[in-house]
Order: sequence, then C-alpha cells, then structure tokens
Amino acid sequence: MMSAARPPGHACETYVELKARLREISDLGSLQGLAGWDELTMMPSGEGAAEARGRALATLAGVIHAKSTDAELGALLRDAKPTEAKDVANVKRATEAYEKSTKVPSAMAKKQAELGSRGYQVWAKARAEDDFTSFAPVLKEWVALVREKCALVSPEKATYDASMDDYERGLTSARLSEIFTVVRNGVVPLIEEVYAKKTPTILAGKNNPLLGEFDVEKQAKLSERVAVALGFDMTKGRLDVSVHPFTGGCGPNDVRMTTRYKANDLAESLTGCIHETGHSLYEQGRCAEYAGQPVSEAHGMGVHESQSHLWERMVGLSEPFMHFLLSELKTEFPKDFADVTPEVLYAAFNCVKNPSVIRVESDEVTYPLHVILRTELEMGLLDGSIEVDQLPELWNEKMKKYLGVSISNNREGVLQDVHWSSGAFGYFPTYLIGAILACNIFNAAKRSIDSLEDKISRGEFAELREWLRVNVHERGSECDSADELMMLVTGKPLDAHEFVDYLRAKYVKLYDL
Amino acid sequence: MMSAARPPGHACETYVELKARLREISDLGSLQGLAGWDELTMMPSGEGAAEARGRALATLAGVIHAKSTDAELGALLRDAKPTEAKDVANVKRATEAYEKSTKVPSAMAKKQAELGSRGYQVWAKARAEDDFTSFAPVLKEWVALVREKCALVSPEKATYDASMDDYERGLTSARLSEIFTVVRNGVVPLIEEVYAKKTPTILAGKNNPLLGEFDVEKQAKLSERVAVALGFDMTKGRLDVSVHPFTGGCGPNDVRMTTRYKANDLAESLTGCIHETGHSLYEQGRCAEYAGQPVSEAHGMGVHESQSHLWERMVGLSEPFMHFLLSELKTEFPKDFADVTPEVLYAAFNCVKNPSVIRVESDEVTYPLHVILRTELEMGLLDGSIEVDQLPELWNEKMKKYLGVSISNNREGVLQDVHWSSGAFGYFPTYLIGAILACNIFNAAKRSIDSLEDKISRGEFAELREWLRVNVHERGSECDSADELMMLVTGKPLDAHEFVDYLRAKYVKLYDL
Repeated sequence: MMSAARPPGHACETYVELKARLREISDLGSLQGLAGWDELTMMPSGEGAAEARGRALATLAGVIHAKSTDAELGALLRDAKPTEAKDVANVKRATEAYEKSTKVPSAMAKKQAELGSRGYQVWAKARAEDDFTSFAPVLKEWVALVREKCALVSPEKATYDASMDDYERGLTSARLSEIFTVVRNGVVPLIEEVYAKKTPTILAGKNNPLLGEFDVEKQAKLSERVAVALGFDMTKGRLDVSVHPFTGGCGPNDVRMTTRYKANDLAESLTGCIHETGHSLYEQGRCAEYAGQPVSEAHGMGVHESQSHLWERMVGLSEPFMHFLLSELKTEFPKDFADVTPEVLYAAFNCVKNPSVIRVESDEVTYPLHVILRTELEMGLLDGSIEVDQLPELWNEKMKKYLGVSISNNREGVLQDVHWSSGAFGYFPTYLIGAILACNIFNAAKRSIDSLEDKISRGEFAELREWLRVNVHERGSECDSADELMMLVTGKPLDAHEFVDYLRAKYVKLYDL
Repeated sequence: MMSAARPPGHACETYVELKARLREISDLGSLQGLAGWDELTMMPSGEGAAEARGRALATLAGVIHAKSTDAELGALLRDAKPTEAKDVANVKRATEAYEKSTKVPSAMAKKQAELGSRGYQVWAKARAEDDFTSFAPVLKEWVALVREKCALVSPEKATYDASMDDYERGLTSARLSEIFTVVRNGVVPLIEEVYAKKTPTILAGKNNPLLGEFDVEKQAKLSERVAVALGFDMTKGRLDVSVHPFTGGCGPNDVRMTTRYKANDLAESLTGCIHETGHSLYEQGRCAEYAGQPVSEAHGMGVHESQSHLWERMVGLSEPFMHFLLSELKTEFPKDFADVTPEVLYAAFNCVKNPSVIRVESDEVTYPLHVILRTELEMGLLDGSIEVDQLPELWNEKMKKYLGVSISNNREGVLQDVHWSSGAFGYFPTYLIGAILACNIFNAAKRSIDSLEDKISRGEFAELREWLRVNVHERGSECDSADELMMLVTGKPLDAHEFVDYLRAKYVKLYDL
C-alpha cells in the first residue's frame, strides 16, 4: 500500500509505478476491444450469447472503472513529475482521464457498458425491421444517461460541449460553428451547381464502370490487396466483414478492421476498405516506446478521421491513384475494366450522389451536410430542444432542406447509423473535422514529399505513410487540441477554407462548372 | 464494505450477494475464454500481437485472482447457508476454489497466465521446427511453477495428486493405478492379437475408403452438418479451424469449437469434429438456472472427455452410426462412396493403427497406451525422477515398449501435444478416464432408451442428447468425484472392466480373433 503523503525525491519511481498502472488499464482495454470486435464479427446470433457478452463487458467496465478511479492512481498522478515533454503530456492526458472517471460512479460506468451492448442489438434489429419505435426507448435512456454524466463530469460546460470532448479534445461548439459556417457557405452552392450538371462531363452518355455485378470473393481479395499495398500490416491485424465497417481490436500490434461488400457496387467496398485502412495505419503507427500509455493513443476521433479520410479521399479518390487502382482492377475483373481509362475511373469514383441518402455511401461533396444534419439533431437532443420521438420527422425534414431528398423509411433515414446506439453524441462532427484536417494534412505532405502524386500513381505509398507516422501517428495525444497538432503538422490551425477550395477546384473541373 | 462479523439471520441475502460475486468472476472468465479462443484461431501472427495478448491475459488473471481471493468473498462463503442441495454444492465448489486460490499469490497467478501464453507460442514454433531444445526451458519453468504451486495449495498431497485435482476432482494416483492396471492388463494382449491379424477381416484386400483426396471445403461442410445433426446449436456457438482442435469460448450460450482438416484423411476431421461436438453439447447443456455459478460448470475434465468420447466412439464409431453417416458421405462425396457398404465403412473407421504414433490420430485400442505413457512421464517430472531433458529419449523408449513404434523426430514424439505448454500436468489421465466413463454411460443410456441403436442408425440423436443433458450436463459439478456422479448416472462407480470387455468384444468381431 502506498501512503498518500509520499516522501520527496521519489518522482522517478512514482512515474514508473504510474506507468505500470496505466498499462494495466490499457491491457484490460485491449480485451474490451477484442470483445467488441468479436461481438460485431464472430459472436453467435443467439440472444443468450449477446446477453452474456453484455454482462461480461459490463463487469469488465466495472473493473476498469475501479482501476481508473483508484485513489492510489490519483496520488501517483499528483506526485509523478516527469521532465520529458512526452512524459509530461502522458501525465496530463492520464490526469484528465482520471478526473473524468472519478466523477462517474461505478454503477453509471456499468450501465453505459450494458446499454452499449443492448443498444447495438436493439438498433440492428430495429434497422432490419425499419422500426424506430423499438429503438426510441434505448435512445431515451442514452439521452438521460449522457446528460446525467455530463452534468457530473463537466458541470461548467454545455452538455453537448462536454459530450463532444470525449471524442475530440478541446473542440467547442463555438469553434465548430465557425468551421461549419465556412463549410456550409462553400458547399451548399457547390452542390446546387453540381446537381444542375447531373454527371461528370467525361461520363456523359457512358456507363459507370463501378456499377454492375462483381463477385464478392474477388472484391474481398482486391480490398485486401489494396489495403496491404497502402501499408496495412497483416501480421499486426485482420480484415473481416461486418454490417457496419469499423476499426478496432487490441492495440497497435493487433488491429482489427472490417468492411462490407455489395455485389452490385464496387466503389463502396473499395472506398470503405481504404477508409478503414487509414484508421488502421494510424493505430499500427502509434508510438511503440509509449505502448499502453495514454500519450501513445490517437489524438482524438477528428484526427483519427483525418487519417481515414486522407487515405480514402485525398489519396484513394485522386486522379493519380486511378493509375495504380486500374491495374489492380484489371487483375481481378479483367473483362469489366478492359476499356476503362484512368480519367473515366476517376470520374466514376467521384460522382456526386443525387439523391444522397446514406452517409457512408455518400460522396465528399454531400457528406458534410450529412454530418451537419446529425450534429444539429444531437445538439437538440442534449439541450432538450428536440425529443427522441421527433427524430424521424426532423431527420426527414432536414434531408429535404439540405439535400433535396425525400426519405421513405427510417432504415434509410434516422436508423442508418450505429453511433447513437452507443450514446456517442458528439462523434458525428469529428467526421467533418476529419475531412477538413485530411485536406490540410495532405496539402502539407505534398509540400514536403517530392512528386508525391507521381509516386501515388505508381502505387508507391511508403513515403507518405512514413511522413504521416512521424508527423501524426507517433505524436499520439501529445497536443491539447487538433488545432495545436495542426500547428506542428501544417504550420497553421485547422483551415476550413482550404477544404472548400479543394472541393470547388476538383468539382469545377470534373463537372465543367 | 461488509464487516467480517455479519448479523445473524441474513443467510439468504448473503447467498444472493455471494452468487453475484461468483457470477462476476465467471463473467471475467468468459473473457479469458474468448481471448484464449481468439489467440488460437483469429489473432494475427506477429510477435507483438502475441506479447500484447499474453500481457492482457496476465493482467486479467490478476484481476480474477484478486476477486477470487477477496476476504469478503471468504466471509460470504462462510456465512451463506443455503438449504437446497444444488446450492449447498454450489457453496462447496466455490469454497474449494476459494481455498485453492487464496493459497496462490497474485504474482504466481500472473506468471501462470503469462507462461501459458508464451508457452503456447514457443511450443507451436518448436513443434513446427522439430526443436525440443527451444521448448525445454519453458517446460522447466512449468515444472518448477507447478511444484511450487502444489506445495502451497495441497502440502499434504503428492505433487501429482495435487496437480491432477485441478482436472478431475477427487481422483488420486491410487485409484488411477487401480483403473490403469485393469486397462493395461486387458488392452496390451488385445493389441498384440489385433496386430497379428493386420486388418479387419472385411477390409482384407480392399482399399480403405476414408483414405484418398477429399476437398477440404467439402469436409468442412460435412463436419458442420454432422455437428448440427448431433445437436450442436450454431446460434450458441461457432465451428472454426485451429492447429489443435479444442472446445472453449464464453460459456453455454457461446461455445467455440475448432477442428482441422487433412486433404488425404477424412476420418480425422470427422472423428475430431464429433469429439469436439461432444464437448460442446456438454457446455451447451449446462444448467441455465445456475448460469455463472460454480455448480453449473462441468464436473471435471474426465467427465468432459466422457461426453466427447461417448459421441466420438460409442456413437460415431459404432455400426449403427455408419448407416446415418454413409448417406451424409454420399451427399458430399458421391463418387468416393458409391460402392461402400456400412459394414466396410465401420471397419474402415475402426482400423487399429499400426504403427500408432500420434495420440489424436490413434484409435480406441491403442489410445489408452498413449495416455498411460504421458501419465508416467509427467508423474516422473513432478516427483523429480525424470528431468525435462530426458523426455524425448524416454518418450521414444516407451513408444517402442508399449506400442512397438520407432519415433524418428520429436514433432511426432514428445512435441505432439499442446498440453504441457500450458503446464497441464494431470490432464492426460482424464482422457482415459473419459473413455471408460463414456463406455459406462453409454451402456446405461442403452438400458434407458428403447432401441437406441436403431435411432442412431436413422440419425435420431435427440433422445440420447436429452438423456445426457438431464443425467450428466445439468448435474454440472454437484458431485465430489466422478465415481459419485457415476453412482447417479449408471448405478455404480467407474467400471474399467466394462471398458475392456467392450473393446475386446468389438475387436474380436472386427478382426475375427
């Protein structure tokens, strides 16, 4: 047992002991990651299995909560005085987490875990059966629980700001509003111009080569090959199939990513796989020296999304990438792509969806509005201006208003995303933050790496991956906010104008606006 | 916090609280089961993944150990006074486990988990490379650790008896010697007679229809269909592939079994799958009312093996089963089995291996000697009469002496089994105990179920499965020993003579002795 009053001069031993305790918490977290992955990919379908898993995860969450709120951990955090900058940041991140955790009672932590597991099952069934009313009670439980939690953890903050802090450290509604205003003002008119043109100029009168019938096993092979080419290390991870693609698992040496395949749509599986590969490269690239320590963890979800979006969009949807990809497509589907040029392939991958109904199937132009819609709704849920029962109607109204879409069922509307089933309010905005950061970071990489686009067209991704590892992945959670990290990576804070400029330049050319 | 001195009259609440704590330990155990299964089936191959998993499992073992040795748990065990027989047994089993655990220091429990994970990796590599010397250091660590542990837990017992108690409650070296003597005296001369005849009479001059080239994917389909026909519930479990077949997972509602397939040998995958199905049916049949409680757990490994051996041998290798199986084989491999009769198939499945080298590929006649060999060696390791470095030589000498086999490499010798890599000394004898119990239990089932063999020949397994569920599976750990359980199931203790009689009668007929 350690006494609360420690003798002076033992800061170094204190820090060593602190790191051991933090690592134990991380070890148990890796088992949460495993159980969560298994639940979505491998677990048998019987209700008993799901119930038992929910109970086991709740018990484990209770154990982790107890370790994370142990008074001895608090004393170590107070007394450890490391001097290296990375260690200082490590203690800072651990202290923030400790302060958050100690404010959440064990019963509440257990309830969160249990509701997360149950919520997923209920959501999956409700979505399959297009039945929002069966999901609404779970969502009400989540709104109440998140409000209760935020009031305990950050009573000084608005509920939404407090909840968002769990996903993107240091991001506020005020900064978000600044950023989203720039995007909305730039993107809404762009969509109108694009919709007026209907199709990319080069595709006019042609078939889209990505639509057709594509053997799912061949798609899986192709996806795996592309992921490996980008740098996914199969000795440190797996690629499986799940209803909703995700990246999770047990840490940098055991990253589990999933994707899904549709026989009639090649684009979705490919872009989905490249997206998750971006997440996976971040995870596999984390700082080994600080393994198991908070500072080695990803900065936050916005920066995580910057990596998935960078690989998916800035690389995977770029003109140079089409040269590499086309040769891969010709290997797996020789007949379908015999007569396709890189230019046509580029246009096919970058058609703006009209209508744009499903977020994960949408394109980079309409995507921002999907995020803004969800963000507005969840802000309303948490500030009490919107009731859960109003969600389907409000969702459909906003889809009409922002994207001109009529939603005919909740399956394709309010039930399409998994996030709310785990109470992840404040997660959605990180997708748009990530898209903007991806653009900012890729522009910085282009300035640093000679002929990057030529290299991409030749399928040479190692230099970019290494640049990202050093500049983003290994930095982990050193910074207090994404803006601060961007100062180190690009020399300026997040720049939404650059994102809007990128979109406009690209789609003006594609659609001959 | 609960005080050690509880007020009287709260025995009922005490038992409720006790059960909640035991259930938490079981919940965490289910995550150990998941992580263990994943390690052998899904985990990426990189060393970093294995290291991280080893550390995570060691941390979890430490948590479970802390919960299992909590003084408050001890007080609850002392004060809970349930009256129902099943609850009384529940407290008894929990108390035994508590007493064992409290004698093992946390550091030792962690070391066991870590060595188990590392040991498996080292063994798998050593086996692949036929390199006993790289495995020997791990084995020495295990011998030292198990001795140290047994001396702490059961100082009054010989090390081997103490270690065996972890696998088969109440079994002693003395009783084992009594049983093994009967078997050795009966089986050794039987093998000599069988070897003199070379082949089952009906197979003389014929090809064995189970040897050839069989598509592995078709084998997998066939195995799954047979497992489901026997009663494996795929909504409460999975069937995957691993180097060494096993049954594990997360409890009765999520049973993970594995098998392996060889393109040139149909018998191994089928009998292996039926064997694991037997284990799985036991797990899936456990008493739901006492889920998460010690009394609902399997009685021990011997009884567990009785269920796998009953389905594999008493059912799967029986004459009646061949009528059912042949129609399944004709579905999957129509050409290969067009002209095969049930009688020929029966003989093909029941050829006594000569030479008999690999335990899991052996037959029911030579199998007992494989077990006896391993039991003698591990007894010697623990009592100090045998050194780890002598194992390969002694293994090969005994193989020559008992089964007339010359072993040319350790891959097919001392490195063939996974068990010692996890320090499971005392596990092997439970295989032979299980084989004997299987015979005893099946004979009792035949007395209870009308025309059981006719039903088996028609593929009707539900009545037998239900009889086993009620008589064995749901009884869980109610009894103090396998002999006591047998009194309830068959009306007499384990009967080794019945096993020898069964073997002799079967093989006299097959080989025309």
